[in-house]
Amino acid sequence: MINKITIVGVGLIGGSLARALKEKNLAKTVFGYGRDRSRLDNAKKSNIIDDYSTQIEEAVNHADIIVIATPVGTFRNIFNEVKPLIANDVIISDVGSTKTNIVDIAKEILGDKSQCFVPAHPIAGKEKSGFEASDGNLYNGKKVIITPIEDNSSESIQVIESMWKNVGAEVDFMSPQSHDDLLGMTSHLPHMLAFSLVNYLVDQNPSASIYAGGGFKDFSRIASGDAVMWRDICLQNKDKIITHLRGYQSTVEELIDAIDQEESDKLELLFATAKKTRDSWIG
Amino acid sequence: MINKITIVGVGLIGGSLARALKEKNLAKTVFGYGRDRSRLDNAKKSNIIDDYSTQIEEAVNHADIIVIATPVGTFRNIFNEVKPLIANDVIISDVGSTKTNIVDIAKEILGDKSQCFVPAHPIAGKEKSGFEASDGNLYNGKKVIITPIEDNSSESIQVIESMWKNVGAEVDFMSPQSHDDLLGMTSHLPHMLAFSLVNYLVDQNPSASIYAGGGFKDFSRIASGDAVMWRDICLQNKDKIITHLRGYQSTVEELIDAIDQEESDKLELLFATAKKTRDSWIG
Repeated sequence: MINKITIVGVGLIGGSLARALKEKNLAKTVFGYGRDRSRLDNAKKSNIIDDYSTQIEEAVNHADIIVIATPVGTFRNIFNEVKPLIANDVIISDVGSTKTNIVDIAKEILGDKSQCFVPAHPIAGKEKSGFEASDGNLYNGKKVIITPIEDNSSESIQVIESMWKNVGAEVDFMSPQSHDDLLGMTSHLPHMLAFSLVNYLVDQNPSASIYAGGGFKDFSRIASGDAVMWRDICLQNKDKIITHLRGYQSTVEELIDAIDQEESDKLELLFATAKKTRDSWIG
Repeated sequence: MINKITIVGVGLIGGSLARALKEKNLAKTVFGYGRDRSRLDNAKKSNIIDDYSTQIEEAVNHADIIVIATPVGTFRNIFNEVKPLIANDVIISDVGSTKTNIVDIAKEILGDKSQCFVPAHPIAGKEKSGFEASDGNLYNGKKVIITPIEDNSSESIQVIESMWKNVGAEVDFMSPQSHDDLLGMTSHLPHMLAFSLVNYLVDQNPSASIYAGGGFKDFSRIASGDAVMWRDICLQNKDKIITHLRGYQSTVEELIDAIDQEESDKLELLFATAKKTRDSWIG
């Protein structure tokens, strides 16, 4: 059993982990850290965390595990704050949507202590943010990708793996680079496309949504993601996201050509292939 | 009360209209027409239609209203078949996703009788097709756009308007051109983007979907639309769809530039604007 786990940033993702740990009785103390005392107090009153502090020293004191659950743009500051306070046997993990850049920052700032850092990313979310939207079942049946770094001990990797398995997730391992390429494709790309669609539509016709069907509502749901989080993801996974956006533009260009040339068979094939693929993926 | 209404094509859209008419007792006879006798027989056994025929003469005989609910690419043939069989007081309507091209075809083929044709488009759907997926509540609270043509009598427009209102829809009127521009934006564009996304992903990594979160599932749902229907929509609303795809590509290009230049404030603004817009549209 975990003695004390500190969640840095008690929002949707951190709050859902906190809830799951408490509901399954996996930690003696689930401790919250953040800047906003009144929000942390509400999270405690909602029984999402056992206790909290706005002082990082108090928050990480005697913690077995520290999970960073703030936007990836804040990691540099958090590593700087945490470094002088941690022993060599603490495990730091995270839930960040990018990995390569974060591993570089961890190595740069934590130095020798970077062996403490076991990077992880649960593939789960909602369009709502904040601990109010948190859900102890959010990770049930979801994938968590752990991207170990060279100096991680097998014990510390196992602790993080067990934690996620115990809250219902399936754990996979891959390199930070593979993670960023894959998620750049399956998550970052669709989000960029959805943000762009909404911005294109409102620019063309501010009342267009009146005539939008259910398809548009589903498609655009992810355009309600948190702006700061997505700004940080773009900056940290810049190269992969641009590569995938350019690749996608080429696919759209091919479609435009087929429509322009009225290539009836090709259009039907493109749509049938997409339908077959999508149905097999989801089914 | 409608005496006999003939639904040409008893699929998701036609079947849902048939169900709604029967459930609300709005027609004495809801008559189905199609090519596949066994499917029509099943639709009759499921109480979706009262009776059916695979002979167009029998199907339209003594009908007050004929609703064409087949893919828009079939309309030319159907108008040709129906023309010699109809009296001047029958009303022909449709549920097609494009309007300008269909109105042109109606005028060309029906000639004098084109005043019978009241074009309409219910903005409702599902990713499933076929009468098995039909639902008598599909049109409840949904928009139906009627795009009258010059020679329509106000009485025939009112009959179609009342029919849709009676099955729970809200009816708006606009020109065929406005309809095609608007729907090209709010429906055709998102579908093209979703088909392209799935095709891009499977091309890059056939197992990518394992790591796709809920956002991807929602985003790609509309990529399960019927391939023939979407092929026909592309061919019939070609110019508007290409215009919107190109406009969208420019929006994506602007995003790529902002990421490439690491324009942090601009990225945050783009995402925050999209989120605010989307939340206000849906909320």
